[in-house]
Amino acid sequence: MNITGLVEHIGAKKSMLCVGLDTVAEKLPKGFEKNTAGMLAFNKEIVEATKDLAVSYKINTAFYEALGLEGWDLLEKTRAILPEDSFKIADAKRGDIGNTSSMYAKAFFERMDFDGLTVAPYMGSDSIQPFLDYTDKVTIVLGLTSNQGSVDFQTNPIYQPQLYKTVLQSISTWGTTEQLMFVIGATKAEMLSEIRGIIPRHFLLVPGVGAQGGSADDVCRHGATSNGGLLINSSRGILYASSGSDFAEVARSQAQKIASATADFL
Amino acid sequence: MNITGLVEHIGAKKSMLCVGLDTVAEKLPKGFEKNTAGMLAFNKEIVEATKDLAVSYKINTAFYEALGLEGWDLLEKTRAILPEDSFKIADAKRGDIGNTSSMYAKAFFERMDFDGLTVAPYMGSDSIQPFLDYTDKVTIVLGLTSNQGSVDFQTNPIYQPQLYKTVLQSISTWGTTEQLMFVIGATKAEMLSEIRGIIPRHFLLVPGVGAQGGSADDVCRHGATSNGGLLINSSRGILYASSGSDFAEVARSQAQKIASATADFL
Repeated sequence: MNITGLVEHIGAKKSMLCVGLDTVAEKLPKGFEKNTAGMLAFNKEIVEATKDLAVSYKINTAFYEALGLEGWDLLEKTRAILPEDSFKIADAKRGDIGNTSSMYAKAFFERMDFDGLTVAPYMGSDSIQPFLDYTDKVTIVLGLTSNQGSVDFQTNPIYQPQLYKTVLQSISTWGTTEQLMFVIGATKAEMLSEIRGIIPRHFLLVPGVGAQGGSADDVCRHGATSNGGLLINSSRGILYASSGSDFAEVARSQAQKIASATADFL
Repeated sequence: MNITGLVEHIGAKKSMLCVGLDTVAEKLPKGFEKNTAGMLAFNKEIVEATKDLAVSYKINTAFYEALGLEGWDLLEKTRAILPEDSFKIADAKRGDIGNTSSMYAKAFFERMDFDGLTVAPYMGSDSIQPFLDYTDKVTIVLGLTSNQGSVDFQTNPIYQPQLYKTVLQSISTWGTTEQLMFVIGATKAEMLSEIRGIIPRHFLLVPGVGAQGGSADDVCRHGATSNGGLLINSSRGILYASSGSDFAEVARSQAQKIASATADFL
């Protein structure tokens, strides 16, 4: 799925929800084996419970890599169960010199056929170009992140304009709005109006709703565009909303809340 | 192996050479199968040919991830053939919010038992802390990289002090010299004297010697400290020095050149 498909999909479903599969064996509800088989079964149930509400799924690769070879197998298997009519993101935050970034692009865009991949900006243009070379895929660059450490460099006041603004400004010129998205943390919703001044039309992937404290409503109020322009991600807030046998229903109801909050802006 | 072990090892071998295993099936010398079995056999021969000259090996994870599950298997198997008395680096350039960085730390420091891991700085302190929590491991943070895109943010003149200097200055206070190293590209050797003014005692991992044009001698002249203080990496310049049946000898002779250049500063 490319950006055009995503926009259609958002319009049809009246939702900008992205469900993050940050799955951890120890947190699985009762009844699931605490291993990769249990994690895959859980991921399947979460996808089933949310697929009419979510327009996108995001797999956080770290949670899979932590389990070694078996985890990488689970990553590929989880990719395979994502609905074909969803925008499929690998949240891997990769980035390296050109010939190495090409290898990461091959891994996530070719071999696993993700639609989007998160990428770190520090190494600059030639570290990002190999991802942009896949013109039918979406490179999702870190802009302003939701964690406290974003003050260390991204918003450090010694730099004017702040670093994240230079990152957004520069990188937005390196590819079209069909090829580029930016990660903007939901905990910084009030900063979205200013961000829209720099990148008025790019899609934003917005993590940090729910467990990290951001609100979908605030994010939409400050960041939505005429075609939606947002993917609002919730991971823990949906996956682990209940540890009981009603986990799928409760996950669905959390997903519904976010989807509904975004519908008001579509 | 920790920094103390590395320093002893550098003194004993009179070398600061790190061999980078950026292995690609298509580039394997004649006689090797062009698959992961061939890549493992090649990696073994390169390690055998260089292990008395190199104090460290660095696995570039992208080259393995690009091959999917089989590639991750090769990554674990290549890790297993690295000499116990070498400093074993995963060059993965990871970094994310705290609970996700913890997962990456688990993957590389626990499960695969690497001694060092490269990490991206953009997300700030709480994205790096989970790596530093492994006090017997070494977190190797990107400082000034060897690629052209380093001008976009790291050395962009709109920021004074330049961003990479703020990164080095700030992050050097987050952990001891036993816990932290920095990546400084060899193509910027002339900038090492100034960098030593900011981080006089930290070990530097220096890629970009050989194929990328940096010189080991220049790097040592500007960056060596009393205990060495450098790991000078060469990947393509050693691995693919010859595509004939003499590949191991020629790789060894390239390794010898770099090791000898560094010996003069020990």
